[in-house]
Amino acid sequence: MSETEEIGAHERRTAVTQELVREVGDALEAHEATQVRALVADLETPDLADLIELLEPEHRIGLIQTLGPDFDFEVLTEVDEKVRDQLSEALPNDVLAKAVTDLDSDDAAYLIEGLEADDQKEILDQLPQGERAALQRNLLYPEETAGRLMQADFVAVPPFWTVGHVIDFARDAEDLPETFSEIFVVDPGFHLLGSIDISRLLRAKRDLTVDKIMDTDRHIVLATADQEAVARQFERYGLMAAPVVDKNDRLVGVVTVDDVVEVIEQEADEDAKLLAGVGDERLSDSVRQIAPPRFSWLFVNLFTAILASAVIALFDTTIESMVALAVLMPIVASMGGNAGTQTMTVAVRALATKELNPANIVRVVVRETAVGLLNGMAFALIMALIAVAWFGTEQLGLVIAAAMLVNMLAAALAGIFIPLALDRMGFDPAVASTVFVTTVTDVVGFFSFLGLATLWLK
Amino acid sequence: MSETEEIGAHERRTAVTQELVREVGDALEAHEATQVRALVADLETPDLADLIELLEPEHRIGLIQTLGPDFDFEVLTEVDEKVRDQLSEALPNDVLAKAVTDLDSDDAAYLIEGLEADDQKEILDQLPQGERAALQRNLLYPEETAGRLMQADFVAVPPFWTVGHVIDFARDAEDLPETFSEIFVVDPGFHLLGSIDISRLLRAKRDLTVDKIMDTDRHIVLATADQEAVARQFERYGLMAAPVVDKNDRLVGVVTVDDVVEVIEQEADEDAKLLAGVGDERLSDSVRQIAPPRFSWLFVNLFTAILASAVIALFDTTIESMVALAVLMPIVASMGGNAGTQTMTVAVRALATKELNPANIVRVVVRETAVGLLNGMAFALIMALIAVAWFGTEQLGLVIAAAMLVNMLAAALAGIFIPLALDRMGFDPAVASTVFVTTVTDVVGFFSFLGLATLWLK
Repeated sequence: MSETEEIGAHERRTAVTQELVREVGDALEAHEATQVRALVADLETPDLADLIELLEPEHRIGLIQTLGPDFDFEVLTEVDEKVRDQLSEALPNDVLAKAVTDLDSDDAAYLIEGLEADDQKEILDQLPQGERAALQRNLLYPEETAGRLMQADFVAVPPFWTVGHVIDFARDAEDLPETFSEIFVVDPGFHLLGSIDISRLLRAKRDLTVDKIMDTDRHIVLATADQEAVARQFERYGLMAAPVVDKNDRLVGVVTVDDVVEVIEQEADEDAKLLAGVGDERLSDSVRQIAPPRFSWLFVNLFTAILASAVIALFDTTIESMVALAVLMPIVASMGGNAGTQTMTVAVRALATKELNPANIVRVVVRETAVGLLNGMAFALIMALIAVAWFGTEQLGLVIAAAMLVNMLAAALAGIFIPLALDRMGFDPAVASTVFVTTVTDVVGFFSFLGLATLWLK
Repeated sequence: MSETEEIGAHERRTAVTQELVREVGDALEAHEATQVRALVADLETPDLADLIELLEPEHRIGLIQTLGPDFDFEVLTEVDEKVRDQLSEALPNDVLAKAVTDLDSDDAAYLIEGLEADDQKEILDQLPQGERAALQRNLLYPEETAGRLMQADFVAVPPFWTVGHVIDFARDAEDLPETFSEIFVVDPGFHLLGSIDISRLLRAKRDLTVDKIMDTDRHIVLATADQEAVARQFERYGLMAAPVVDKNDRLVGVVTVDDVVEVIEQEADEDAKLLAGVGDERLSDSVRQIAPPRFSWLFVNLFTAILASAVIALFDTTIESMVALAVLMPIVASMGGNAGTQTMTVAVRALATKELNPANIVRVVVRETAVGLLNGMAFALIMALIAVAWFGTEQLGLVIAAAMLVNMLAAALAGIFIPLALDRMGFDPAVASTVFVTTVTDVVGFFSFLGLATLWLK
């Protein structure tokens, strides 16, 4: 096996080092084409994509031009959207047309979707008929739908063909996809009748007709379906591929699991980031791109913090008469915030993965409430002991214990019901849950602690 | 197409309703076997798995026994680990042996991995030779490795066979996997020489030998490799399948992308949960299972909160003389905490996906620091205006502005350097970053605000 790479216990990081980026940049600067080619010769597609992202913008085009026909345009489907748009605008249309011919239709659509309509047309006009039709089919559907994600090139045969006929056809046809794992059976109107995994085709007798061995029990995807819904179904039902149909039930393409892997990763990644208020940031984004959205999120949180301060201000005379309250009050709020975040994160992820549903919702609410109560009692006791030891007044221990219990319970309830309510109202619970939950735990935390202190410590 | 299901704009939730769970439970109670069968007849594998999880434990076995030979044991590979262990312990060994025969080797390993050694042996002894060997190969490797994830059943042929020979072999052999997307070429010692996608095999001339058309440029996976490392490579290089070899470079199985989808989802999901301190919880876990680990996380956070309180206590006389400080101080700490969480989440996810690497680390650190400074200045100004308007003293505005700027900068630095340091030291940054970052932002927030107030407001 030449040029293989083993995936071992120590995961290989990207092959692109700072040094390589500098060397390639220098070689491009000096117009050392042979040197440039030698430096990137061993890079695989995703590595070359990394390198292009890390190069100075003016060197990116230079690299592609230097590599000329050796450059694999699949690389451009793996760079960040902004870099891709910069490059597809800078490259001449005939180079792009050549690139598009070599790519699968979903990758080709990805490459030219950002171009002006007349540039798109000029490129499409240069394509062979079959490929143009496939690519136009992809471009017909909006981004983030199954229609855009699908491969519009596929193998479809009529039901009366024999296995031998199909195999001969596959052997002789010129314009088939490079690899394919199944063959679709359609009627003359291109309505899907069934599909055949090709390992099954390989093993069937040559004189059987395909309608005898086709699989008719399939998950079908609507071309307009959201890509996250598609990904969820692939995951749930362990699908390898699913046929895509238009609104007239005509077969228009096939989505395969490798297209879906990235969608699944993105979706879970997005939730982690949305919960922290960093939305759909990318690591290659600039300061100017990320500072304003982060500001907006922090600005919303500032209102939460000010609301909490207003609650504290209600009790300023109590605090003045006993400064220990000011010392201890952040503990109650912070413990509530952390406990609320625990429950909320579980709820948000369970909603995203559709694990939380009417059949188990009551059980989960009861469970979260019970955990809130149990841990609330535990921390009430612990904090009471600490407060008494620290400040020497038993009443203060009683106050903080009661406030802690109240806030931990409030945290559990807010943590579960706020995401549920947002979801029910049609909002993405990952976007806004954090703000609402911490508002609840801050306000309840300060109000219960300072309020009880005002009542009991007079 | 009979029994198909379209994935449309409105994602279908699970087919299992509370009503169905109750009806099946009642029918089992009443021993109405026909009724039970009718109720579950239309459920697909993952739906039936959901139903089993939601049934009372004593009804689960009843359902499997009622369905008898109609029960598809693949269902048990999709239920939660605890439920699966309960069922595989309760079912007789000969039923399990029958089930194991019907499953792929990775699923079979999953089903019996929790059993006692002698039960495992009894089941293995009842299997045909080929399947026993494959299953034993899977069981040889620890959980969460490529060796456990792989399908140990695969098609391997010698390099001198012709395409026609391979096709005839595939047509006649009895013990091949149900479907397969590629064929491996091996030497007599089972060392991997190459592989052939079967769509390529289908299209090749029958008299070519396989070594002429095999692909030798492949990503190979070590059987002992961690499944997350494997998943990362699948995603990065867009792999559909990868051959798995043992430490002597012998081919022992194949990992396919559908096995990897779940690992990818789990991994991103885990990070979101680890950041919130809810580790590897499952929605079906009980109060007793989740309360103690959540307690531990909150307990660690309690120290953070107490440390922050100790900082406040340093300045108790300052607070006593100006209670407005107690009112405003949580704002500085909370804004720092939120800003730090933003940077930290970006860093943790970028480390997990290997996007953050030596080639871009300096740029990311500079970017985060710049964003911290910019947003710090913005919120310094906003809070200064609010504080002056609220309490009417300009000096207080100056103090909170300076403290806000200092804390937002500290938040950015802590948010990026703490995950980096944990990663460098070999810890998972998702586990502990939150605690350290909020400790920094709380301590710096209270210390800078109250400290500056003590210096400047005398």
